[in-house]
Amino acid sequence: MATNVTIGAKEYFPGISKIQYEGPQSKNPLAFKYYDENKVVAGKPMKDHFRFAIAYWHTFCGAGSDPFGAGTMPLPWSKNSDAMQAAKDKLDAAFEFISKLGAPFYCFHDRDIAPEGNSIEESEANLKEIVALAKKKQAESGIKLLWGTANLFSHPRYMNGASTNPDFHVLTHGAAQVKAAIDATVELGGENYVFWGGREGYTSLLNTNMKRELEHLGMFLTKSRDYGRKIGFKGSFLIEPKPMEPSTHQYDSDVATVIGFLRKFDLLNDFKLNIENNHATLAQHSFAHELQVAADAGLLGSLDVNQGYPHNGWDTDEFLKNLYDAIEMMLVLLPYGGIGKGGMNFDAKVRRNSTDLEDLFIAHIGSMDTIARGLLIADRILSESDYIKLRTARYASYDSGNGAAFERGELGLEALRDLAVNMGEPKQISGKQELIENLINQYI
Amino acid sequence: MATNVTIGAKEYFPGISKIQYEGPQSKNPLAFKYYDENKVVAGKPMKDHFRFAIAYWHTFCGAGSDPFGAGTMPLPWSKNSDAMQAAKDKLDAAFEFISKLGAPFYCFHDRDIAPEGNSIEESEANLKEIVALAKKKQAESGIKLLWGTANLFSHPRYMNGASTNPDFHVLTHGAAQVKAAIDATVELGGENYVFWGGREGYTSLLNTNMKRELEHLGMFLTKSRDYGRKIGFKGSFLIEPKPMEPSTHQYDSDVATVIGFLRKFDLLNDFKLNIENNHATLAQHSFAHELQVAADAGLLGSLDVNQGYPHNGWDTDEFLKNLYDAIEMMLVLLPYGGIGKGGMNFDAKVRRNSTDLEDLFIAHIGSMDTIARGLLIADRILSESDYIKLRTARYASYDSGNGAAFERGELGLEALRDLAVNMGEPKQISGKQELIENLINQYI
Amino acid sequence: MATNVTIGAKEYFPGISKIQYEGPQSKNPLAFKYYDENKVVAGKPMKDHFRFAIAYWHTFCGAGSDPFGAGTMPLPWSKNSDAMQAAKDKLDAAFEFISKLGAPFYCFHDRDIAPEGNSIEESEANLKEIVALAKKKQAESGIKLLWGTANLFSHPRYMNGASTNPDFHVLTHGAAQVKAAIDATVELGGENYVFWGGREGYTSLLNTNMKRELEHLGMFLTKSRDYGRKIGFKGSFLIEPKPMEPSTHQYDSDVATVIGFLRKFDLLNDFKLNIENNHATLAQHSFAHELQVAADAGLLGSLDVNQGYPHNGWDTDEFLKNLYDAIEMMLVLLPYGGIGKGGMNFDAKVRRNSTDLEDLFIAHIGSMDTIARGLLIADRILSESDYIKLRTARYASYDSGNGAAFERGELGLEALRDLAVNMGEPKQISGKQELIENLINQYI
Amino acid sequence: MATNVTIGAKEYFPGISKIQYEGPQSKNPLAFKYYDENKVVAGKPMKDHFRFAIAYWHTFCGAGSDPFGAGTMPLPWSKNSDAMQAAKDKLDAAFEFISKLGAPFYCFHDRDIAPEGNSIEESEANLKEIVALAKKKQAESGIKLLWGTANLFSHPRYMNGASTNPDFHVLTHGAAQVKAAIDATVELGGENYVFWGGREGYTSLLNTNMKRELEHLGMFLTKSRDYGRKIGFKGSFLIEPKPMEPSTHQYDSDVATVIGFLRKFDLLNDFKLNIENNHATLAQHSFAHELQVAADAGLLGSLDVNQGYPHNGWDTDEFLKNLYDAIEMMLVLLPYGGIGKGGMNFDAKVRRNSTDLEDLFIAHIGSMDTIARGLLIADRILSESDYIKLRTARYASYDSGNGAAFERGELGLEALRDLAVNMGEPKQISGKQELIENLINQYI
Repeated sequence: MATNVTIGAKEYFPGISKIQYEGPQSKNPLAFKYYDENKVVAGKPMKDHFRFAIAYWHTFCGAGSDPFGAGTMPLPWSKNSDAMQAAKDKLDAAFEFISKLGAPFYCFHDRDIAPEGNSIEESEANLKEIVALAKKKQAESGIKLLWGTANLFSHPRYMNGASTNPDFHVLTHGAAQVKAAIDATVELGGENYVFWGGREGYTSLLNTNMKRELEHLGMFLTKSRDYGRKIGFKGSFLIEPKPMEPSTHQYDSDVATVIGFLRKFDLLNDFKLNIENNHATLAQHSFAHELQVAADAGLLGSLDVNQGYPHNGWDTDEFLKNLYDAIEMMLVLLPYGGIGKGGMNFDAKVRRNSTDLEDLFIAHIGSMDTIARGLLIADRILSESDYIKLRTARYASYDSGNGAAFERGELGLEALRDLAVNMGEPKQISGKQELIENLINQYI
Repeated sequence: MATNVTIGAKEYFPGISKIQYEGPQSKNPLAFKYYDENKVVAGKPMKDHFRFAIAYWHTFCGAGSDPFGAGTMPLPWSKNSDAMQAAKDKLDAAFEFISKLGAPFYCFHDRDIAPEGNSIEESEANLKEIVALAKKKQAESGIKLLWGTANLFSHPRYMNGASTNPDFHVLTHGAAQVKAAIDATVELGGENYVFWGGREGYTSLLNTNMKRELEHLGMFLTKSRDYGRKIGFKGSFLIEPKPMEPSTHQYDSDVATVIGFLRKFDLLNDFKLNIENNHATLAQHSFAHELQVAADAGLLGSLDVNQGYPHNGWDTDEFLKNLYDAIEMMLVLLPYGGIGKGGMNFDAKVRRNSTDLEDLFIAHIGSMDTIARGLLIADRILSESDYIKLRTARYASYDSGNGAAFERGELGLEALRDLAVNMGEPKQISGKQELIENLINQYI
Repeated sequence: MATNVTIGAKEYFPGISKIQYEGPQSKNPLAFKYYDENKVVAGKPMKDHFRFAIAYWHTFCGAGSDPFGAGTMPLPWSKNSDAMQAAKDKLDAAFEFISKLGAPFYCFHDRDIAPEGNSIEESEANLKEIVALAKKKQAESGIKLLWGTANLFSHPRYMNGASTNPDFHVLTHGAAQVKAAIDATVELGGENYVFWGGREGYTSLLNTNMKRELEHLGMFLTKSRDYGRKIGFKGSFLIEPKPMEPSTHQYDSDVATVIGFLRKFDLLNDFKLNIENNHATLAQHSFAHELQVAADAGLLGSLDVNQGYPHNGWDTDEFLKNLYDAIEMMLVLLPYGGIGKGGMNFDAKVRRNSTDLEDLFIAHIGSMDTIARGLLIADRILSESDYIKLRTARYASYDSGNGAAFERGELGLEALRDLAVNMGEPKQISGKQELIENLINQYI
Repeated sequence: MATNVTIGAKEYFPGISKIQYEGPQSKNPLAFKYYDENKVVAGKPMKDHFRFAIAYWHTFCGAGSDPFGAGTMPLPWSKNSDAMQAAKDKLDAAFEFISKLGAPFYCFHDRDIAPEGNSIEESEANLKEIVALAKKKQAESGIKLLWGTANLFSHPRYMNGASTNPDFHVLTHGAAQVKAAIDATVELGGENYVFWGGREGYTSLLNTNMKRELEHLGMFLTKSRDYGRKIGFKGSFLIEPKPMEPSTHQYDSDVATVIGFLRKFDLLNDFKLNIENNHATLAQHSFAHELQVAADAGLLGSLDVNQGYPHNGWDTDEFLKNLYDAIEMMLVLLPYGGIGKGGMNFDAKVRRNSTDLEDLFIAHIGSMDTIARGLLIADRILSESDYIKLRTARYASYDSGNGAAFERGELGLEALRDLAVNMGEPKQISGKQELIENLINQYI
């Protein structure tokens, strides 16, 4: 089902109509060159491969401030001095933008869509009021909620963490927010619920009881899961890893660390991973690596498809524009069977000096096209080339005979040693890395 | 028991006698200023806190070559053209050095102490012959083996990994080496057996089946454990994490990753961690962080006490000389109850342009003194200052009442939310990081 | 001359009186343990070695916001809704704090001390009004201005740079601010004037004419110099290098780059360097390295004495607490003849979760003590140890004979080659790095 | 002029004949898909744009050793136990490989082509003998020498540097080698002479007199230049920057640093830069950035076209396979007017586990194709798209009127300030970064 352009009381992007697919030759910066949502590739329409979602915070709330300067973005929907009215205007702008872009999903933090009130009750009421409006907007536009989450890092009270705060009192506020955010997610039919623990870590190990904080985190997630299941949430809970920033060290450092944590606290049945490219590279991993680690554990939940600047050491959250990242992502996803109930959220922002409203469209279009090309190229690599065959052949010695016996656990160290003696020195077998890299390039 | 100076057929360090403790005022570069092995601190002699071990490879085999140049070190014990005789000469030099330095332990890879032969059987025979000699040397000197290991990364056959090699044939050679190295370790009374998987990772993810390789690694470790237990090895098996180098990505990336792996493959009862400072910093962690993660899991096995150069991106393996690292290490170790059957191995080398034989002594002495001061300072911080009290007090809200009920799992999300409503906005509680940092500095 | 405690209409730090030197044994967190301002070391009082300056922005304006959350600091002096009154209250708080701490200097950006108005004229008037008040405060307290600067990075108009903005119109606004800031600096007797070009760089090279931007920067600095000299400014202009953040690439990347730039644009007679530790490490240099490069060029102007967290890739601006940094800094400064008319500005902030007002004092005290110890230790190393002798001796071959002839330019390649032939193979001379490192540690 | 396949006494790559251009659809791994040497693009044949050169050291000498293991490559031409005969065999293999590949140039260090002897005279004689043979090979094949250089980093004598060695005696040996290497370069008609100062830096600043070392470096380069000019060398001397490795800090850190050095020592007329991608990224710069800095100074001499692995912190010297790097390189080079007398040297090695001899061909072919595509794409971007127009338009305000007056130096700070007052607040002008990034992607 296509999305319907949905404009509210005021049109915020007046010169821009629904973005169309015009093909690779088009010179129109406001048209898709590769993303053709209904085109069937590898057995299903493009849009079902990606399930693109717009990040409410960056695209509608992000004014472009950084540690060295104030916001630069116009955000015409945020001018009303009444916070709730501004939230409603923003909702109008959001659904106008998303539906004109033709993205099928969106994602939000509680505080992105509704302002914090003077009390928990008021915050809850604010959120409920906007959720009711959003539900209508969803119905009108056909846009769906990929996931919701609670912002447990911006308010000063969370300066020492939320569920890992040394002060139990603060933890209870985190719980109140998560409860309300799960309620909102369920009400809006959200398919997943995300935890990103920006301040669930430490500023200094010297004043931190890491063990106790991690146990609190495990308990908090357990209770959140229990609550979600109790009220009927059927989707996945997702943990989003990041190694640092804003915390000096964040507990959910990378995919392997999170999986270890989930296994220890017996959460593997309900939790999966939401993996972000820029977080991967901050952890010194490639995006593909993090995806593969999650895929190998059957825990690939959803993606934040952005990228970082390779020579800066913080989260730049640029739009994914590197074709190699897109191809390698799809080379993991396609054999895995796709993204399932997850999706691809643009956790990305236009550069602070990209201040035309059309830049928001241009950036999203560019990234959608890049990923669409990634799919087209990866599909051809997988279906036309020797790529999979080359890789598989390297492991053939384990498919039968003694190699297979080893895999079944039938050979101990002594038996292996005797095999080595009998077989003599192995011959060198090239990894053929450059051959495979050339092959990838050839399909671009 | 003190070690006895043990000189072989030839004295390799003729001008240097047993290194003595002379105290902080001494100007003698060949004397200890702080390491006073029998001085009792925090309830036991210094030497039992540290259980210092000399790294055979760096100190007796390392000629100082790097990717841009040949070795520079004299290594007078390595001149004999007969490889076995050179190995025996090196053994003499090693025990002379270790006993003059007064370190109670040493560590080795199989190939450090005995040369690889033209066949597995010859390699095994070479190793056995040297092990028999080393056993005598141990008895004569009182020096003991902290751990042994097998070098599964230097020989060209391991270019694609050993236990994670795509070719089963290569894996069998790795198994042969590990079997022989465990045999040697047991024969020499080694207290631990280490796995460092320098090439157990990948050069390129594109040609790698990571899942299958990790399963092979798990199986290999399981079979190694089984063999060790079968022949009576009572010590710990240790995994040494490192994120990369020589591999592009190494599977044993950091402590959290390794613990997750051990839990998944059900190896937690037999394996612990051997943690290296320079590997920690390459993984973007502090040494103290990695130690604490292992300590919190009860898996702190042994240490490689070196350090890296903070602005270079590879393993520089410098001698630990940073007092802060030493203090923070002891601030983790002392409350943990100490290093147990592990020890502190200097996995460090003198700089390539430190080519006097005495530089080997100077470097070890400097590091031993630094660590001894770290102990003295950490002990005072723990026993005299408010350090522990300050940290503990931060978590007091979980010690009783609702916080304790949360820890016991008695409070769900709704109950927590109601507590938040009732308690209202929490007050900001300073983390007092600078106060604690000043406190640490004051005890230096 | 000592500073006088100077309290305004309201006392902002009521429980805290003038910080006293109490010596290393004091347990009082609000006392100096090492910084004894009048104690003579290496020929002059401690305070003249350091010329400590408080950074107005971090200490009085910094609310603790970061890209992921709002400010946490109380800042009781910033509550007045009238911006000019708030600026006056802040001035009171600042002089109270600085005088209680006993720091002889302060530093500011124009916008730190006076709010931007609705026009350039209004901004200028605001600044003049506060400058007049600050002048009185300076007289009353004895506190002096180390340097002033203009904030050309926070206002949205500077999103593409100030003097390197592609739009000349924006450059003129930068010029207006610099003119007013130089006026203010001269009026207040500031001893230096600083340029830190946070946005003088690029976000993307793709849309940037780097050559033209650098020429504009050169012209802008030239005209600023001309103006300053014209109105009687006798001090140094200082460039503060940083490689990136907020820009993707900042033109003033590191000390060597800045010196090259100054030489090219013929600015070496009027400009020196203001060097920051955390900026040095972001550029992959040690602080000592950057200091030495500037010192060797005779261009060491002033210092920002802070430090970064070694495993995070952004400017954390922590208080300098690492004793090694302090010692190595003084090992460069003492032989250079000291900091001259420069000083040591704490470009540092308490951690975002250090929210007690006393934390501001504790952090500054800790850093002042660390630096004072650095001086005491470095002075002993230089005066009592072989440190300088060891280093100098390494170069003895150039002090006479053929080595000296080479230095005088008298030996060409052929003559050098012939000398090599005649002298034969040189012998290996150890760099004795570990010996020197141990020596440094021994003086701690 | 095309190169002629030139086989020596033995054919080292028997199954491989001259590599042909077969076009993008070819599945032949041993054919060019994009590099069509005589195809005219942007006014000249492809081969003249690139002037590809084979790096003698990696391709013919590199056995694949790394700090953790011995070489893995077969190198059948290096088996002869007589070092001079092995050098001759290697020369045969080199010219066979280069001529079969169809690269027009090669590059070498003195020690790559001829072994060091037991004395300087013997080393010189060895080099002369091989140079005479190489001259014949050049004539026979049509292959030319892009540049020669001296290896002043591998021999143990250079462990403390060559021209920056504290011991003058060592410096003279460096001079002898450089003299002989310049002689060889001139004899072989080399078009450039390169200095890469791998050990011209320090291991520790503590034992280093950086100022004196840099002055020695300046003098050494001056004398080398004088000698070259004296014997008739007309080409460029080139400095190759790298920030570190093997030294802790290398003096020729990056392009800006080298230019500053050359200006200070008055060497700008004879020296240019040889810029390597992997060295750029180790210095936290993009390749394009370093190229642009050199181009803007008119000092772009030659290129080492390789790339690093983005998450490893050392020089991995991979073949350039990233299309973005190739495009951005050509976007700098084409407007600059091309590489002139420089060229593109593959300072790259196949991965240590790529051990088939054909992998050497595959890797070079892949890189040549990538760069050829980079040219084709960059040419279209420059000639067909708005790319240049978009960038130029950003600076239009400086092309006339007051902006131009500023550029001519006619406006002081006061005049600029008055203009700002008169013009009022500038409007925000988007940098259009995403638009330009999409444009680049569209031409791929």
